[in-house]
Amino acid sequence: MDQNELKAQVSKEAVKYIQDGMIVGLGTGSTVRYMVDALGERVKNEGLKIIGVTTSNRTTKQAESLGITIKDIDDVDHIDLCIDGADEVDDDFNGIKGGGGALLWEKIVNNASTKKIWIVDQSKLVPRIGDFGVPVEVIPFGSQHVFNTFEKKGYKPVWRMDGDHKYRTDENNFIIDIHLGQIDDPHALAEDLIHTVGVVEHGLFLNRVDDVIVGRDNGPEVLHATK
Amino acid sequence: MDQNELKAQVSKEAVKYIQDGMIVGLGTGSTVRYMVDALGERVKNEGLKIIGVTTSNRTTKQAESLGITIKDIDDVDHIDLCIDGADEVDDDFNGIKGGGGALLWEKIVNNASTKKIWIVDQSKLVPRIGDFGVPVEVIPFGSQHVFNTFEKKGYKPVWRMDGDHKYRTDENNFIIDIHLGQIDDPHALAEDLIHTVGVVEHGLFLNRVDDVIVGRDNGPEVLHATK
Repeated sequence: MDQNELKAQVSKEAVKYIQDGMIVGLGTGSTVRYMVDALGERVKNEGLKIIGVTTSNRTTKQAESLGITIKDIDDVDHIDLCIDGADEVDDDFNGIKGGGGALLWEKIVNNASTKKIWIVDQSKLVPRIGDFGVPVEVIPFGSQHVFNTFEKKGYKPVWRMDGDHKYRTDENNFIIDIHLGQIDDPHALAEDLIHTVGVVEHGLFLNRVDDVIVGRDNGPEVLHATK
Repeated sequence: MDQNELKAQVSKEAVKYIQDGMIVGLGTGSTVRYMVDALGERVKNEGLKIIGVTTSNRTTKQAESLGITIKDIDDVDHIDLCIDGADEVDDDFNGIKGGGGALLWEKIVNNASTKKIWIVDQSKLVPRIGDFGVPVEVIPFGSQHVFNTFEKKGYKPVWRMDGDHKYRTDENNFIIDIHLGQIDDPHALAEDLIHTVGVVEHGLFLNRVDDVIVGRDNGPEVLHATK
């Protein structure tokens, strides 16, 4: 199977977890795009009644075009289940997210959700996270100083670009991607990043998933995180 | 002396620290307003040549109206000296800032500055910080969940308002003021706040000042922080 077929495969599997009446967090990215399509089909064909809470303006647009009811995160008091993708997942269920630039809202929705599922094709499983790079969302004001600090620390920072301009997140912030290769201690890195003045959030998602559904040639595999 | 006279007093003292050629961080607030006026006089009368880096659009406006050259923080590679106010300062030089709503840019400028001075009238000195409340800057998306989390923790959160609407910072975020009374362990609270998903920054300024200039009836007193 090619990557797109695997993405479609895990998406079909994931939407089985969604039950009538649920409030569902909808991630962002190329895999989630398939999942939202699959959810739209269930809503249309089965009359499934759910409320979606999205993690990006892109996903909102897609979901609404498919007739999925969307509410603002601040208009719901909880989220039952969040389904999102991931850019890398390691054996300890540490993840990196934010390749699509939506890490902040993704982490906020993840954090507000009771159950968390990631859907990935098999290429996203790695022994140790880091080669993908770690996206870091920063306040524009003073961001060059954050960039310089990362450079001095050997984090090999690169501005996320959108054509000729710096990429802007849905909250109008910048993203700096740092490149450390495989990370020995992601928890220590997370501590360093979150304590850096000007950093809003980072793409390290540690202890933030219950099940990972992996797309494989012989069918989806469900991995349960032990906490 | 009344409070305004004390503010003028410390402001005159503080601007003596500014030398020709310096890049100077300019805080925000009612005390800093006097300081920027005093700096403007030095620029006008002595031909003092400095570059100011401001912590709010308000301060930028005031400084430029006085003929002070202002540069964007990302257009300077360092700041020699930052002069800012504080809402509370305790015996250990822990401070609370953000009453004026500019805590994020204030902390970013503070962090980029080699030397840091706070100017306060004597009413701001307290044995232990906390009674003022702690301003917390939060991403609007999901902020009601942050508010609810604070409520559950007994932090007595209150939305910062601007008339009928939630106050917006210069970065377009919200502020939640939390009310814990005098804080036993400000470092522990700072850790809790910065790890709360959706929190951008908080108004606890710990280990972030070198000298505090205190306005007193018998003249300004300079306190040196030991680190």
